[in-house]
Amino acid sequence: MSVPATVVTPPLVNELDIVIPTIRNLDFLEQWRPFFQPYHLIIVQDGDPSKTIRVPEGFDYELYNRNDINRILGPKSSCISFKDSACRCFGFLVSKKKYIFTIDDDCFVAKDPSGQEINALAQHIHNLLTPATPLFFNTLYDPYREGADFVRGYPFSLREGVTTAISHGLWLNIPDYDAPTQLVKPRERNTRYVDAVLTIPKETLFPMCGMNLGFHRELIGPAMYFGLMGDGQPIGRYDDMWAGWCAKVICDHLGLGVKTGLPYIWHSKASNPFVNLKKEYKGIYWQEDIIPFFQNVTLPKECTTPQTCYIELSKLVKEKLGPIDPYFEKLGDAMVTWIDAWNELNPSTDDATTVKAEPSIPK
Amino acid sequence: MSVPATVVTPPLVNELDIVIPTIRNLDFLEQWRPFFQPYHLIIVQDGDPSKTIRVPEGFDYELYNRNDINRILGPKSSCISFKDSACRCFGFLVSKKKYIFTIDDDCFVAKDPSGQEINALAQHIHNLLTPATPLFFNTLYDPYREGADFVRGYPFSLREGVTTAISHGLWLNIPDYDAPTQLVKPRERNTRYVDAVLTIPKETLFPMCGMNLGFHRELIGPAMYFGLMGDGQPIGRYDDMWAGWCAKVICDHLGLGVKTGLPYIWHSKASNPFVNLKKEYKGIYWQEDIIPFFQNVTLPKECTTPQTCYIELSKLVKEKLGPIDPYFEKLGDAMVTWIDAWNELNPSTDDATTVKAEPSIPK
Repeated sequence: MSVPATVVTPPLVNELDIVIPTIRNLDFLEQWRPFFQPYHLIIVQDGDPSKTIRVPEGFDYELYNRNDINRILGPKSSCISFKDSACRCFGFLVSKKKYIFTIDDDCFVAKDPSGQEINALAQHIHNLLTPATPLFFNTLYDPYREGADFVRGYPFSLREGVTTAISHGLWLNIPDYDAPTQLVKPRERNTRYVDAVLTIPKETLFPMCGMNLGFHRELIGPAMYFGLMGDGQPIGRYDDMWAGWCAKVICDHLGLGVKTGLPYIWHSKASNPFVNLKKEYKGIYWQEDIIPFFQNVTLPKECTTPQTCYIELSKLVKEKLGPIDPYFEKLGDAMVTWIDAWNELNPSTDDATTVKAEPSIPK
Repeated sequence: MSVPATVVTPPLVNELDIVIPTIRNLDFLEQWRPFFQPYHLIIVQDGDPSKTIRVPEGFDYELYNRNDINRILGPKSSCISFKDSACRCFGFLVSKKKYIFTIDDDCFVAKDPSGQEINALAQHIHNLLTPATPLFFNTLYDPYREGADFVRGYPFSLREGVTTAISHGLWLNIPDYDAPTQLVKPRERNTRYVDAVLTIPKETLFPMCGMNLGFHRELIGPAMYFGLMGDGQPIGRYDDMWAGWCAKVICDHLGLGVKTGLPYIWHSKASNPFVNLKKEYKGIYWQEDIIPFFQNVTLPKECTTPQTCYIELSKLVKEKLGPIDPYFEKLGDAMVTWIDAWNELNPSTDDATTVKAEPSIPK
């Protein structure tokens, strides 16, 4: 039987933007060309706006530097961090697509154990387009994967799963460690390829890394705010963590799923642990209060959109974390500014749009 | 430098029993000989007690048939199932050891992707002797494993972990599917070796399979009751599920950890899906009420031992699940009988022994 000639369209090619925060020429894209070239890139240039960032030929992109951010957001630009990869969330704001994939410019194509190059974007898309199972743990991992299913004892009423909002990918080579662990284990490399995708259960928090991350922008984008970090702020390297804690709590509330595991990227170089320690040290102790806060947070039933959830969360942040440090008052205000900016740039996904969320099991 | 001659003692050789429920000659032990021979076996013979079960030479074992169970437990033997692998929990009762590994007689030695035979018992022991992390998810899986650690953003106060009470291993070849899935996917085989061990988060239930299971008998043994199944009962194949739900809820309450993942065993043959459907069908719909029951169960603070937790749970089972079917009244009574039998045979671990549990985060 002859196979008809078909043009294979890359999945979601008109529905996904790739967001890259950077301070340097984007030569790393050469390696990603076979996988990324069909997609639109949003490049957020951090640092000196007068510097020219070189993008390899043939990529379709828009690039924003600090001057652009200030011009587009006006006074609301105060919510976008400077000199920190947290600035990436500006790309989420200006995107008009349904999905986002964001990646750091020191992340390269990894290989699976068979030596095959991993198309990280394709795996994120697969993760996002198949359901998640936050309400009960499946011991054979992702039940929607080829060759796997729900095991004996998995309730049938839960096998439809819920919509996946976040796909968190991992890293071979340099693991995403904090400064103390980097200092203690300078030579540790991640060489273990774990061939699994799994749903992080409801009401379980996780450390979300922004290096290799996909998400459903329409469903959870407004919660993907990377906070106030870097220049003029008392803290750095907690941008993705903050977004992850907020987004997970809101996913749980809205009945959305969060997956972690595949795909791996190759993380090429460890950042300087001494510089990192300086950025992190306040976070290291604040986090001991932040985690119990997020573990106990409850959002009102009336909050049915990521925007309303996020505004509610901003109030709780000011009320419950404000006493720790004035920083959290400022962060709470910035969270509100962020939502204002989101609604301004995304009028169609304004509060009126209710997420079609699965009913959640009462706490 | 010369290395001194040393005799390597198998780990926990005097502190662990291997429990095997069976109805046939234990030829499968030949394959396990290099790994199991140093350990003591407890064989629970199901079915016709007049049949002689052959055990390969060189193994150190005790064997109990139904006549032995009736003689040892007297009227309390009513809590031990007949003609169902649930009878295995009798072995947990009569053991005097700190740890149990239980395995089915159709489980063989699996190979890892490098072709190396997997010592399942050694991996369970490793899982049990290293802490678990139920309070926060680590994206690089088991942080205590060689080459891994806690990732950036993992709270430092939680890195000590909690004591591991249960190690749930997986299966290559025949996956542990329910009858409907077996019927729909008769040819599906599990060929994916996922090189990970992970902690099942607090307040997340999972389907615990009894085929390849290790646990800390002193800390959680009294909750490892496999219920009333098989002969004279309206349900089968929910024995390990029942034990898993009860044990997980009690582990969560006592601040103990449950791990799943490695080690794999090779599960040789699928059981008959038509027979299984008959055993399972009531469980398939009862489970839709049982899961929300366990998801919402709260044990009183005063319950600080697995025994007191289990007695409390038995009351809740009768109260909340009794209205579904009279079976749950009977099961609740059997749970009490089981604890009576446990305390009779294990006077030293009676209610007086308080588990040194980690403080749990308030619900």
